[in-house]
Amino acid sequence: MAAPCSDTCEAKERSLRERVPPLLTDLYQFTMAYAYWRSGRHQEPAVFELFFRDNPFGGGFSLFAGLEDCLLFLRSFHFTDEDVEFLRSVLPPNTDPAFFQFLRGLDCSGVTIRSVPEGTVVFARVPLLEVAGPLAVVQLLETSLLCLVNYASLVCSNAARFRLAAGPRRKLLELGLRRAQGPDGGLTASRYTHMGGFDLTSNVQAGFLFGIPVAGTMAHSYVTSFNSLEEVWPQTLAAVDGDRDPVDFVSLTKGWLTHVCELLGAESGKIREGELAAFLSYAIAYPQNFLPVIDSYSVGCSGLLNFCAVALALCELGYRPVGVRLDSGDLCRQSLDVRGVFRLCSEHFSVPAFNSLIIVGTNNISEQSMIELNKKENEIDVVGVGTHLVTCTKQPSLGCVYKLVEVRGRPRMKISEDPQKSTVPGRKAVYRLLDAEDHPFMDLVCLALEPPPEGAVPLSCYPLGCDSSSVSVTPAQVTCLYQEVFTKGQVTHPQSSAAQTREKVQSSLQTLHPRYKRLQEPESYTVALSERLHHLVTELQRGSSIDSNFLLAN
Amino acid sequence: MAAPCSDTCEAKERSLRERVPPLLTDLYQFTMAYAYWRSGRHQEPAVFELFFRDNPFGGGFSLFAGLEDCLLFLRSFHFTDEDVEFLRSVLPPNTDPAFFQFLRGLDCSGVTIRSVPEGTVVFARVPLLEVAGPLAVVQLLETSLLCLVNYASLVCSNAARFRLAAGPRRKLLELGLRRAQGPDGGLTASRYTHMGGFDLTSNVQAGFLFGIPVAGTMAHSYVTSFNSLEEVWPQTLAAVDGDRDPVDFVSLTKGWLTHVCELLGAESGKIREGELAAFLSYAIAYPQNFLPVIDSYSVGCSGLLNFCAVALALCELGYRPVGVRLDSGDLCRQSLDVRGVFRLCSEHFSVPAFNSLIIVGTNNISEQSMIELNKKENEIDVVGVGTHLVTCTKQPSLGCVYKLVEVRGRPRMKISEDPQKSTVPGRKAVYRLLDAEDHPFMDLVCLALEPPPEGAVPLSCYPLGCDSSSVSVTPAQVTCLYQEVFTKGQVTHPQSSAAQTREKVQSSLQTLHPRYKRLQEPESYTVALSERLHHLVTELQRGSSIDSNFLLAN
Repeated sequence: MAAPCSDTCEAKERSLRERVPPLLTDLYQFTMAYAYWRSGRHQEPAVFELFFRDNPFGGGFSLFAGLEDCLLFLRSFHFTDEDVEFLRSVLPPNTDPAFFQFLRGLDCSGVTIRSVPEGTVVFARVPLLEVAGPLAVVQLLETSLLCLVNYASLVCSNAARFRLAAGPRRKLLELGLRRAQGPDGGLTASRYTHMGGFDLTSNVQAGFLFGIPVAGTMAHSYVTSFNSLEEVWPQTLAAVDGDRDPVDFVSLTKGWLTHVCELLGAESGKIREGELAAFLSYAIAYPQNFLPVIDSYSVGCSGLLNFCAVALALCELGYRPVGVRLDSGDLCRQSLDVRGVFRLCSEHFSVPAFNSLIIVGTNNISEQSMIELNKKENEIDVVGVGTHLVTCTKQPSLGCVYKLVEVRGRPRMKISEDPQKSTVPGRKAVYRLLDAEDHPFMDLVCLALEPPPEGAVPLSCYPLGCDSSSVSVTPAQVTCLYQEVFTKGQVTHPQSSAAQTREKVQSSLQTLHPRYKRLQEPESYTVALSERLHHLVTELQRGSSIDSNFLLAN
Repeated sequence: MAAPCSDTCEAKERSLRERVPPLLTDLYQFTMAYAYWRSGRHQEPAVFELFFRDNPFGGGFSLFAGLEDCLLFLRSFHFTDEDVEFLRSVLPPNTDPAFFQFLRGLDCSGVTIRSVPEGTVVFARVPLLEVAGPLAVVQLLETSLLCLVNYASLVCSNAARFRLAAGPRRKLLELGLRRAQGPDGGLTASRYTHMGGFDLTSNVQAGFLFGIPVAGTMAHSYVTSFNSLEEVWPQTLAAVDGDRDPVDFVSLTKGWLTHVCELLGAESGKIREGELAAFLSYAIAYPQNFLPVIDSYSVGCSGLLNFCAVALALCELGYRPVGVRLDSGDLCRQSLDVRGVFRLCSEHFSVPAFNSLIIVGTNNISEQSMIELNKKENEIDVVGVGTHLVTCTKQPSLGCVYKLVEVRGRPRMKISEDPQKSTVPGRKAVYRLLDAEDHPFMDLVCLALEPPPEGAVPLSCYPLGCDSSSVSVTPAQVTCLYQEVFTKGQVTHPQSSAAQTREKVQSSLQTLHPRYKRLQEPESYTVALSERLHHLVTELQRGSSIDSNFLLAN
């Protein structure tokens, strides 16, 4: 049953077509397509697989993301006259003009995709996507599919690692747009880090397009743009219940500031007037959303005092201030100090709202600093992460590849002198084997035509990366990882909503045993070939060293 | 004089508006804009500066790129009804509805931009772009401008480093699309690596949009898709002059293969028939563009022999084969072996064309492996670089920032407890000081209103990053780095063509003394503040510790 495509889906498809036009690919896809076409091989049924060779970030797992975009791309894949004219200008001049007619008529109506569901935990060397169809077409799709899966999966996996490092309760805010690889990189980052476990983004367009909750209040520039209390206008604010006349909010706050300084024994002389003016202006504009950045000058000598004064004045008028943001220095230590002051104010001035203020920390957070932060005592409720999240500093590329495994029903294999670059031939099925505690312990890659493994039945297989000895295992349960998601130009499997996929990431990670999820030095999860697939590999490798006598044939 | 905007320019502007809609920014830009608007400060004249804090990749310089896109973005900056409706849904419910009317009418007609020309060598802490205009508007532009400059400058600088590592003569081919941060990341990479010194790209869309020469012939999948010579069709090829009937090209090549095996003492039994079939098919399709990848199985035992046979057959028919691609193993050593075989064939079979065959090397090239490659003896004519170039593995983010320096004509400064995060206040002019050999030796940052420094006149200044002692220098010449490029909603400085900017990168690098261009441990180029600017900084810092008595005022 084809999933219905609403207006939203068509709009998404249009937007994707603009982002990923069919010319956004490597030139050699066209020269190869021409050579196939020229020799009449372009319609031969062929199968490619997409996979990566190593789990990213030195970790034990990855997440698979980007599938929805791949399907939108396939639905809309075709060349315009303008595309074809450009190709005519860059392909060699002796290219047969009929080839361009052929390109003009191409689409993905002959393509079938089977894939792991988006948001699933996956492992190196397991095929994530199988692309079957006419040889020339499936060859042309290579670069675009890689481009759509590579970064989406990488940044989603990175987000999941930050989520693991941060623990389940702390809120995570993505704010990487300004440091991403260009505008679309920023948008893709917001989308897939949300999928990977982030709660919020600063990116408004990501909220608009993908419904991700957006957050943010003020930058340092806002604070430093103020110089004196004279710049605060209006200076009055009405109480939340609106019963009384607006009060002089500046004077009210100055009164509270004096009390706060007394309580904390602070020198009022070090307090920055411009910062107070900025906080006042913001609070008057958004009395229910007061969350200033408090380290523009000095947290302890100015920012925290100014915050408390404005927040106490807001409380007096019945509003609930939200909290503070720290953007430099030792976030853990400062958060403890800040929380201590909040508790003291709450108690001393009898303002219970001060017990539920939140502390946001943002300061070039990396995975390592998130791990350290989580180990140390601190009072940070929300952590904002930018650069290290979206650029994946620890490993900025996943390195997915797209390899031919079958042509005209015959398995194909690349037997490289570099064993890492050899491929596993044939059309496959992938099963996840679970132990008695429902934990996955092995992904088994079989030939597609083999009978599937069964629960409680022992099987013999060949783990990848070991020498070629077999092992025997008995799964408690077996699940099939592949779904057919695209046939005859149509999406055939109802796609999950973004929220469902986000849920799937966490549930998929939940089932994984902690030993594979450790961020550093995890145990290596086993991916194995079935006996029959292993024999096929051996046979083709042996075939490659059998003397060939085609030179003697006519 | 405004630069005329042709149809192409309008098309670029439309496409940029789709890539960088005005909602592609951080939410806090809108909350701050509202707070400014609410307090009547939104029209106050303000000035922001864009700069980065450290030269990327541990190097001594960076390049400035992304300006043209910034100007297109500014020209087209406005909010649609749909944008404003979305903002209404995410801003706090008590936001004054009149603010959304204000947003709906916003554009950049009040904005002025002065900037360093695109493609200029630049250094850390020198302001690259000055954005002046109404406070709320220039605040709203922050994230988009950062997003457009950050990655463009980073990847352009990375390309320039690869160019320095490769030496001036070797051709450089960018092929990073599949490993880039999504589709647009890939396109941006192709564009700015060309600007930074790459000659060619594999990205067809980059050729289409930016006129970059595209290159590419075949992948391993093409080779492994063939199994036997029976798959070669047609099997005939006509000579280049077309005088004779087409000849049986397969038999012709098999004959040459026997000769090649004899010459090289190779075992014909190890030659892969499928690989030969692939090469034959490609050569028959593109006899003038024969450049196969020769390491699908074994370079020495199969790929090179098959190449030579097909290439000799092509030569016999009057065609000129182009060369080979190596994609694994020790590229240097293999290139020497391959060149040796080419020379031997050329001599033995009297085919001069074999002396001008090119060798392309592609195998996960990093800056370090490029440096090593350039040191070792090798015969590689073209180097293809992907992942490490486009993802900038060595440092995946430039970290540009956008800081407020003036409001209502008064200098503004952020005085952080973290000295790295303090800013330099005031509206500025930037001069590059040259020595008697025309080498730049210092960038001098002055207040805009100061008289410019003059050649042969000594001046006193304060180098950044040193303690606060002054130095005296006498430049032989002085050039002004800033140009006014945008005023009243219009581009006011004719933009350079892509080719001119690419040229500028190399000429700008050319003038730089080698000590600053060393890829490892370069000398640090001096950026200094003028005396007056230094005094302003000191004054504002001192001001910050002067007792403030606003608490006592009413």
